[in-house]
Amino acid sequence: MPPAPQLTIIGLGLIGGSLGMAVRQARLGYQVVGHDLRHEAAGRARKLGAVDRAEWNLPAAVEAADVVVVATPVRAVQSTFRDVAPYLKPGCVVTDTASTKAQVLAWAAEILPPTVSFVGGHPMAGKETSGIDAADATLFGGCVYCITPGERADQDAVERVVSLATGVGAKPFFVDPTEHDSYVAAVSHLPFLLSTALVNVAAQSPAWRDLSRLAASGFRDVSRLASGDPVMHRDICLTNQESILRWLETLGAELSELARQIREGGDELEKSFQMAKQARDLWVASHEGPPGRPARWRCGAHPQ
Amino acid sequence: MPPAPQLTIIGLGLIGGSLGMAVRQARLGYQVVGHDLRHEAAGRARKLGAVDRAEWNLPAAVEAADVVVVATPVRAVQSTFRDVAPYLKPGCVVTDTASTKAQVLAWAAEILPPTVSFVGGHPMAGKETSGIDAADATLFGGCVYCITPGERADQDAVERVVSLATGVGAKPFFVDPTEHDSYVAAVSHLPFLLSTALVNVAAQSPAWRDLSRLAASGFRDVSRLASGDPVMHRDICLTNQESILRWLETLGAELSELARQIREGGDELEKSFQMAKQARDLWVASHEGPPGRPARWRCGAHPQ
Repeated sequence: MPPAPQLTIIGLGLIGGSLGMAVRQARLGYQVVGHDLRHEAAGRARKLGAVDRAEWNLPAAVEAADVVVVATPVRAVQSTFRDVAPYLKPGCVVTDTASTKAQVLAWAAEILPPTVSFVGGHPMAGKETSGIDAADATLFGGCVYCITPGERADQDAVERVVSLATGVGAKPFFVDPTEHDSYVAAVSHLPFLLSTALVNVAAQSPAWRDLSRLAASGFRDVSRLASGDPVMHRDICLTNQESILRWLETLGAELSELARQIREGGDELEKSFQMAKQARDLWVASHEGPPGRPARWRCGAHPQ
Repeated sequence: MPPAPQLTIIGLGLIGGSLGMAVRQARLGYQVVGHDLRHEAAGRARKLGAVDRAEWNLPAAVEAADVVVVATPVRAVQSTFRDVAPYLKPGCVVTDTASTKAQVLAWAAEILPPTVSFVGGHPMAGKETSGIDAADATLFGGCVYCITPGERADQDAVERVVSLATGVGAKPFFVDPTEHDSYVAAVSHLPFLLSTALVNVAAQSPAWRDLSRLAASGFRDVSRLASGDPVMHRDICLTNQESILRWLETLGAELSELARQIREGGDELEKSFQMAKQARDLWVASHEGPPGRPARWRCGAHPQ
């Protein structure tokens, strides 16, 4: 029997750890090697069954790898590419899990050797808890998994990443990296910023102690994303500035419009609310899975 | 045995219906009478066990009542007071469940006869689904129940409403009506407006069809409140304009500040995110109930 192909995960946080668990539990046939700057996280990943082997030396972790998954915060992807580039074997498939794609593809084209294939990836899954202890083999079940192949990626490499996505239960979705970044700015980065702004505005009020007693399930849900990892979200914002700023501006205009409608007290306000309700109810209905199966948007959802 | 005191609920939607169910299931000793403009809703309430008796004639519904709960959308509270005022028996306790309190107290002082006591109420519970079919006897379990007695309310009347709140499992919380309105503007009305603005901005984009495919659990949670009842929220906004507009302005300034930090790309952004995470994590921790019991903020929480 030939030895099992090696899959190396760099960055053993929520996403890297969950991916390792899912790959191992689905028996995709990989020897899973894990690396993390923090040795403690790598040790925990080994104990939790997220990797077959933790390798503290980065060159040693990647030199025999057939697939390398970079699952660090976005801005660390650049330095990780630099660190691993000299050690990748020809034909190696490199992928990532970052929430922004255009910048990552530019770094891959610039830094990775032409002997390897880069295929960008972004599983649309997450929780507001982070780190290896939050990892969960079922995190990707039913989720959309965006795939953005690099220009030099060969077909086999693309298929490898597609198999990896389907193997962990996700649904591959090919998308142009610039479109991806604009879309996720609207449906993922903007909601995070709204959550964060809401919490900061409420918590910085002198009345926060009283306010917080009255905050209930509505506040909890709209503020949930504010509990996410600050470094991850900073990196996302700084590698997707243009799209995020454009959506923030549109959102600001919509809030000003709602303020005007509240001030004037006419019929428009109810219409604005009805329009949102209708769009949101339709979206929820279209994302319900078949009966008896969890809804598509339930993936990675463990509200807290 | 003296006849059971009569509790009349006007408005058999999510809150009125849930209150009826909770009062009946907790065996608080009331004969529960229900009235709704829509006869269909009153009939459903009867079938679902939310009331002992549906009474389609409003004067007949209230003339023998010891307690009247007005659970209509906020702006209908005013006309309801007008409609019932001539028929209330002396000593009757009138309360409501509206999300804004200063305006309701002003209407009560102006319209209700001096022979009755008005004690405002606001159970901090809800779901994004509305109507009698969403009613749930456990909706108020563990929730904060704001209580704002009118100036003429006697002590017995206040105690009646406190008992009603504790009887359905909620925690009474005395609060000044103006403070109440400012607080809930921040932790309840503002989150609703953010949810609504997010959905409108995303759904009105020409790319919504593609965007919506990538929307996952983050979008779902931050947008949840946008599925709430448009009429109820319109009424809330129009009876709490000043507080809501003030909070919207503060929120707008915070979003502009975050946009500046994203544009400039310095260290401030991570600090803003950390601050929100810390405040939100503390809030979640402080709202966790004792082990084995649901957390306080879980009341009425059925994320969809």
